[in-house]
Amino acid sequence: MNTGQKLWQEAKRIIPGGNQLLSKRAERFLPGLWPAYYDRAKGCEVWDLDGNHYYDFAQMGVGACVLGYADDDVNAAVIEAVNKGSMCTLNAPEEVALAKRLIGLHPWAEQARFARTGGEACAVAVRIGRAATGKGRVAFCGYHGWHDWYLAANIGDESNLDGQLLPGLSPTGLFRGLKESNLPFNYNRLDELEALTKRHDDIGVIIMEPQRGNAPAPGFLEGVRAIADRIGAVLIFDEVTSGFRVNMGGIHLTYGVEPDIAVFGKALGNGYPIAAIIGRRKAMDAAQSSFISSTMWTERVGYTAALATLEKMERLNVPARLTELGLRLNAGWERIAAETGVGVHIDGIPPLTHIGFTCPEAPAAQTFYTQQMLEKGYLLGAAVYMTNAYDEAIIDRFVADSATVFAELRAAQQDGSLEKRLKGGVIQAGFKRLT
Amino acid sequence: MNTGQKLWQEAKRIIPGGNQLLSKRAERFLPGLWPAYYDRAKGCEVWDLDGNHYYDFAQMGVGACVLGYADDDVNAAVIEAVNKGSMCTLNAPEEVALAKRLIGLHPWAEQARFARTGGEACAVAVRIGRAATGKGRVAFCGYHGWHDWYLAANIGDESNLDGQLLPGLSPTGLFRGLKESNLPFNYNRLDELEALTKRHDDIGVIIMEPQRGNAPAPGFLEGVRAIADRIGAVLIFDEVTSGFRVNMGGIHLTYGVEPDIAVFGKALGNGYPIAAIIGRRKAMDAAQSSFISSTMWTERVGYTAALATLEKMERLNVPARLTELGLRLNAGWERIAAETGVGVHIDGIPPLTHIGFTCPEAPAAQTFYTQQMLEKGYLLGAAVYMTNAYDEAIIDRFVADSATVFAELRAAQQDGSLEKRLKGGVIQAGFKRLT
Repeated sequence: MNTGQKLWQEAKRIIPGGNQLLSKRAERFLPGLWPAYYDRAKGCEVWDLDGNHYYDFAQMGVGACVLGYADDDVNAAVIEAVNKGSMCTLNAPEEVALAKRLIGLHPWAEQARFARTGGEACAVAVRIGRAATGKGRVAFCGYHGWHDWYLAANIGDESNLDGQLLPGLSPTGLFRGLKESNLPFNYNRLDELEALTKRHDDIGVIIMEPQRGNAPAPGFLEGVRAIADRIGAVLIFDEVTSGFRVNMGGIHLTYGVEPDIAVFGKALGNGYPIAAIIGRRKAMDAAQSSFISSTMWTERVGYTAALATLEKMERLNVPARLTELGLRLNAGWERIAAETGVGVHIDGIPPLTHIGFTCPEAPAAQTFYTQQMLEKGYLLGAAVYMTNAYDEAIIDRFVADSATVFAELRAAQQDGSLEKRLKGGVIQAGFKRLT
Repeated sequence: MNTGQKLWQEAKRIIPGGNQLLSKRAERFLPGLWPAYYDRAKGCEVWDLDGNHYYDFAQMGVGACVLGYADDDVNAAVIEAVNKGSMCTLNAPEEVALAKRLIGLHPWAEQARFARTGGEACAVAVRIGRAATGKGRVAFCGYHGWHDWYLAANIGDESNLDGQLLPGLSPTGLFRGLKESNLPFNYNRLDELEALTKRHDDIGVIIMEPQRGNAPAPGFLEGVRAIADRIGAVLIFDEVTSGFRVNMGGIHLTYGVEPDIAVFGKALGNGYPIAAIIGRRKAMDAAQSSFISSTMWTERVGYTAALATLEKMERLNVPARLTELGLRLNAGWERIAAETGVGVHIDGIPPLTHIGFTCPEAPAAQTFYTQQMLEKGYLLGAAVYMTNAYDEAIIDRFVADSATVFAELRAAQQDGSLEKRLKGGVIQAGFKRLT
């Protein structure tokens, strides 16, 4: 057993679930074999606790590290902030600078608040939306974190969240009075949102991911905007995952539909904890009528990291580069799939691309792909978040190595040896399997 | 107007409230004159945007920086983590190390989870408690942050939170179905908690600060523990403020009463965002039945900072030092109050000591004290969090300078010129005044 797996087994005894994020649980990638822990990471390279070296094609910090791990420019700014004191009784001026920067990138927005995690920021946005309208019910689409307001959707019907990102989320640990406080509609189903507005006259907030996987149907985002205006709801775009990948800001800028509030996290600080809530004054002013306050939101590193990340991202036009690299990877996957006869489907926006196997034994195929690529020195999951630390050479090398594995996979599928070739268990997906 | 005040006025236009924490709002300290922002902080010293130098007797980062600002040892560990990559697809081994460390310091605890802010950590703890018991109602005492579950106490009766830390907290922006989900009892009032258990048979969680100000009455904490056992509730001690000040861990270790879950934040990372939830396996295991997951909780710097902070805190026996320094300050205040005839009351634990003026014009007196001390080069509020960066010399110097101000204050009280001597507005306290 490798050193990381030994530590992972120990972690699971003293940390419920083993860590703080489902997306980083070892069983999600390669049960029994995943290195689980890192010693060092730089660019798109990772060294595990045994000194093994990998190229990261798994998640790049669950999509946080768009500029790459330990980016020199971001780190220089962070280290300066650390040396000058990251916390104080007085406020950090970088907080105001980041507010100005985000408002500058989103001309419709006039004010900003900040938090440290995407889930917190969504909870702040929903609080502000409810306070602004005085109406308590929320209509939502997509994934918005672990907080009570969101999981409440599953009280009474545990399948309400299944159509969103993670199926099987349990509402255990919530007050039952939240039943029917958060009402689901599916992406591109304007009719479902319309139906909710007919059933409930007190929807004060509509929150959604403007795009996670495939593109919005023509008129969908515009339709949601029109419904929000008609019923007097605050429209929140959760851009925690979609922000700063296809353009310098929310993906909604590309579609030309403006929310009342937008939420950012993940990519904003290139891996340093920072999250933002920006919005129109009319909505944001309601933050003053509620109590939304936290000591750790005032810390300097998060603001400094975000400012340095945005500066570099804009200077190098990183979002365009992410799309370029993502398209190159997708083309490579499609080519080798055609050459080897392995059935795959490729989804998502190019900067956040997903590969799936179409065969009946898809989880075993994914496990085999990850297992063989790990031996070739890659960390691999089903989703690849692009990073500016990739270049054409590493994408091409990854595709070439994938071609070898696809050929092995095809042979294993044909002679029925796929399961036999797995050295550990099959990957586990979804909430119920990972807990 | 100083540079900090100019920036603060600008901040209030683009950030509702001006910043992310009530306790750092300029009007709370010295309206119109407070420097508001810092350029650099080191030890107990702060430099503002105009290059003015201060000793911080206000809050030391709202109590986060027990070792002092930009502590060399903590920063060395943080910078190493930054250089080795603070975020990755793989997990940070320091996460497991911190779990082990906290469990080692609290022998009754078996498992740990982590978050980034104290408010988040309390929300996680309450979620786990509700999940463990299957009972939705919470009984609470004290201050536990901005989250829905807590503010719900004020739905229907906006005075329910007034007896706790901050009076006048508005429940605006909450779903009304949370009404009576969170039930208040006052500190040292076991009878009030008993009465709640008689009225409601579905209290699954009791959460409280084991000590914020004055000491628990004999038998109070033991009585709460007994009630929790009797009704089958999970007992949570919120040690976000009280932890790591009087001893190496929760203040409950001093009193010998063990909760099922304890929550830490603030001092744990010496100002770097990290918060912890530790508990007995019986309670913590329930975390597995709920969805509690966040990308930014996995970041390395928080864990690294906490480990380095705990190492230094223990090596130098910092909690004992904080008490020593706090007692010295209290003795100084008492002496100069007696010498000058200024009426004061001193409360709290020595590491977190509060001074209040007993005269009718107390807010004006506090404002005058802060105003005059600012000119002498001190940041000052009504509470002083002790830091290891203080020494006897700076405490004595602070007391000597305070003596001069107390004499001026006494003269102003006697000739009725106090209000006239204020160069700006009187300090604003409480939620309603600060928003």
